[in-house]
Amino acid sequence: MNKIITIGREFGSGGREFGRRLSEELGIAYYDQEIITEISKRTSLSEQYVESIVEHQSSFSFPIHIGRSFYPSVNLAFEQSMTVYQEQARIISEMAARSNCVIVGRCADYILKDYKPFRIFVYADMESKMKRCREKAPADEKLTDKELKQQITAIDKRRAKYYEFYTGHSWGDKLNFDLCINTTQTVIKEIVPAIAKLFEKS
Amino acid sequence: MNKIITIGREFGSGGREFGRRLSEELGIAYYDQEIITEISKRTSLSEQYVESIVEHQSSFSFPIHIGRSFYPSVNLAFEQSMTVYQEQARIISEMAARSNCVIVGRCADYILKDYKPFRIFVYADMESKMKRCREKAPADEKLTDKELKQQITAIDKRRAKYYEFYTGHSWGDKLNFDLCINTTQTVIKEIVPAIAKLFEKS
Repeated sequence: MNKIITIGREFGSGGREFGRRLSEELGIAYYDQEIITEISKRTSLSEQYVESIVEHQSSFSFPIHIGRSFYPSVNLAFEQSMTVYQEQARIISEMAARSNCVIVGRCADYILKDYKPFRIFVYADMESKMKRCREKAPADEKLTDKELKQQITAIDKRRAKYYEFYTGHSWGDKLNFDLCINTTQTVIKEIVPAIAKLFEKS
Repeated sequence: MNKIITIGREFGSGGREFGRRLSEELGIAYYDQEIITEISKRTSLSEQYVESIVEHQSSFSFPIHIGRSFYPSVNLAFEQSMTVYQEQARIISEMAARSNCVIVGRCADYILKDYKPFRIFVYADMESKMKRCREKAPADEKLTDKELKQQITAIDKRRAKYYEFYTGHSWGDKLNFDLCINTTQTVIKEIVPAIAKLFEKS
């Protein structure tokens, strides 16, 4: 069975960079944006729309029974979310069946549980997440510290809701992961070789 | 400044074994029982009594102001706990000043915060903690599964209370650690070389 590494991450913690570097170090596939592109192809929904469903999903706030009420647009949004999630699950399963790989986010730890993936969670304190976001932001971004903090908190809140809706598990709970890495005081590329060594024997 | 690694751990998770093996792999000092022996020497309290204070402390349940009430025995127990904690903090600081080392438990992550220690937390699911306890238990131990589970839960509850009383932080909260390792599906000696590699560059 292929070796699968899944990475859950807080926004701004550098989880995506960590996943990419880890896959490079191990010489295995890395899936992230490719999943969105593939869902878009299969569902004929635009990549932007798929991404907005996957990353900024809000329809989880609505109880399922609202689908029987008189709000067809809410119903449609909910159904599209479900379609996208199911397509995503199918694509992730296909990727895992193909070769060893690192998959970032997207409930992959849950979707691929039969593979017994090695589940990593990457997190950091708010200050360092803000710093990382500032470094990556476009030069003309003018968010105040307060606004940036609110944005980070809101994104993670949505991720948590998304994860909990589809998996029934608490997002970021360390018991759902094999390794939790705090990047607050860490240079990511310096820790990757050590973490990669964990997979030498397995 | 010396490199200090502190290990917090859930009872039965193998944190002690992990700490010992990590110190061996890195060729640095390992402090655990030595701390109890040294406290005992300096306070003239028996090792057993010191250990019972450090591991099975219950007087944290009493609010501090009870010291002014009419219960002198509670007051004495509380004062001895404080004495033992302070002596322990002094000894841990001396050990950290002496050389690079691994220290298991004992709020060392908090006591040595000025050293910016690398703080590891070792945990596991209940089933694997029970299995580990059974393997270590004397042959004549006759605890039922339910009793063993209660014992493990009670010990960790006391550890949490002890840690929170002295540090003001939540025990086991991943934000207070640099790395959290779930030993549920892990052979500890197999992961130690990889984790040791984290310290090669630092």
